[in-house]
Amino acid sequence: MPAPRVIALDAMGGDTGPRTIVPAAAASLIRHPSLSFIFFGDEALIAPLLAGHKSLAKKSRIVHTDIAITMNEKPSEAVRRGRKTSSMWLALKAVKDGEAHVAVSAGNTGALMAMTKLCLKTVSGIDRPVLAALWPTIHSECIVLDVGANVGASARRLADFALMGAAMARAVFHVETPSVGLLNIGVEEIKGVDEVKQAHAWLKGSDLPIDYRGFIEGDQIGQGVVDVVVVEGFAGNIALKTAEGTAKQVGSYIRAALTRSWVSRLGAFIAQGALRALKLQMDPARVNGGTFLGVNGIAVKSHGGADVKGFSAAIDLGYEMSESNLLVRQKSDLDALHGKLDKLEDD
Amino acid sequence: MPAPRVIALDAMGGDTGPRTIVPAAAASLIRHPSLSFIFFGDEALIAPLLAGHKSLAKKSRIVHTDIAITMNEKPSEAVRRGRKTSSMWLALKAVKDGEAHVAVSAGNTGALMAMTKLCLKTVSGIDRPVLAALWPTIHSECIVLDVGANVGASARRLADFALMGAAMARAVFHVETPSVGLLNIGVEEIKGVDEVKQAHAWLKGSDLPIDYRGFIEGDQIGQGVVDVVVVEGFAGNIALKTAEGTAKQVGSYIRAALTRSWVSRLGAFIAQGALRALKLQMDPARVNGGTFLGVNGIAVKSHGGADVKGFSAAIDLGYEMSESNLLVRQKSDLDALHGKLDKLEDD
Repeated sequence: MPAPRVIALDAMGGDTGPRTIVPAAAASLIRHPSLSFIFFGDEALIAPLLAGHKSLAKKSRIVHTDIAITMNEKPSEAVRRGRKTSSMWLALKAVKDGEAHVAVSAGNTGALMAMTKLCLKTVSGIDRPVLAALWPTIHSECIVLDVGANVGASARRLADFALMGAAMARAVFHVETPSVGLLNIGVEEIKGVDEVKQAHAWLKGSDLPIDYRGFIEGDQIGQGVVDVVVVEGFAGNIALKTAEGTAKQVGSYIRAALTRSWVSRLGAFIAQGALRALKLQMDPARVNGGTFLGVNGIAVKSHGGADVKGFSAAIDLGYEMSESNLLVRQKSDLDALHGKLDKLEDD
Repeated sequence: MPAPRVIALDAMGGDTGPRTIVPAAAASLIRHPSLSFIFFGDEALIAPLLAGHKSLAKKSRIVHTDIAITMNEKPSEAVRRGRKTSSMWLALKAVKDGEAHVAVSAGNTGALMAMTKLCLKTVSGIDRPVLAALWPTIHSECIVLDVGANVGASARRLADFALMGAAMARAVFHVETPSVGLLNIGVEEIKGVDEVKQAHAWLKGSDLPIDYRGFIEGDQIGQGVVDVVVVEGFAGNIALKTAEGTAKQVGSYIRAALTRSWVSRLGAFIAQGALRALKLQMDPARVNGGTFLGVNGIAVKSHGGADVKGFSAAIDLGYEMSESNLLVRQKSDLDALHGKLDKLEDD
């Protein structure tokens, strides 16, 4: 039987707060009965919702706070106003203090990033957390990082991303030697920025515990050619958003095509099982959950607009990560890499 | 009746060369009877293909060369080997010499970029050409630039992109004051790189002949919220490739869903008209053609793997651009911008 795992929930985060988060926790509990929950937020809102989920209520407690970070608050403002008191901070604090294994929030990404850094602190040799996202592929999923926590990245930082992403891939895909690709604009070695080229040279020449596959291009992410895709956060965030937008765009083409005449509506009616499966497959809620890596603890970021299924997927991701030795492995791999790079730079 | 327009074709470029390019020219000629063509390449290959298209043959001449740039050649190598002699160079040279209005090539992007710069030369105040792509949206199309000719871009260069993209939008969308957005990672002003923030401040404060709409995110490109999307080339290329990959990925989901049982196959059979229309809409050939802007002439880059319809779309794009006063307008707008920025920097 799996060990008990405690999830700290920022119950006020996201567009709909506890109305989504409470039923999402109930759904995750059914799949993972070893879970229990701490809900941080407005007790007057959370308690009545919990009362509607008997089994969940038995495995949950509420820690009341009036302070919730809003979706539009600037990170600096959020930290000033909500440090030590907000539901977001308290959820992270529970992880820091060892009361919970994982914190999950659907709140303001910038604020969560800033608070994660302040509260959980980055691991040795890493100066800022990195945001990794699960990305659906034609086979299953891959991990893309960074998707927006850092703008720009040095070669050393890109090499860090490769190892942190690999540690996460081990935890969630259960592969011992994850394959890693470096996102670039053309596979010829002539192209791309200096940082990317230098990181490529290091990763190629190293005996790191990853299966480094070299450069990949944007159209290969969804083909699932590697487990981990490494890119600096500006291009990574734009790629993630562009993929979401394109999937939505194609979805609207499909709807328009299948409703334009009575014949196409009839065809769509007959194929409705297949189309429902397709809709499910394209559902962004199916894969939801970014994770801050490079910090002393597990903090999962759900989409702000996630529905019950989506937020529940983020909890499940946190659970899977807590089941692994991610943090230990990340630390030892990064220490080994930094030792090698320091030596290279000394030579 | 429209004025006659001469298209210079690099007949050896792309994966299939004249076998695709000759019938593509024939297709464009039907739509635009004022066109005529110069085919640069291997006469022994081109002449027999032209013989199969009587009307096209009457409006075409062949300029023979043995030298063709390969798809994998490094730009520096391509220039050394093919300057002044290759089919790619000769097509650009025809534009430079006023023998043709437009050059179209499906060849090696890096080589075409280098040769465009060398042969056509950049306009005053611009140091490198920029590659602009047509991007399908739910409404129609938008222009995204840069999609890979430059890695990184200063604020000044991003402002240049905005004006060059707007000049192209006037030519191909026939709008007098194109709307322009700056691609960024979050609409809050706190995010993004310094160059992007500075360009934003300039574009917002200026009285340029564009409708500047501020920051947009990756998922808004396909929503068609603006006519022109400005981004530096590394992120722009990754976004373009990622969108192509995602559309392909969703296409494979659709195929799998609609063939998985006899019921879904029956539904798909009945809705086949709608599904064919959908396929057409998602067809990357429908919108094909990048354009190098900021140079003294019109040079269109087709996808290397474009089919007849795709290459023909690239010719049509070149034709539309040649019909407009793009080059004159681009020059006067850039001169006005540079005057303003120089004054700002002097103050």
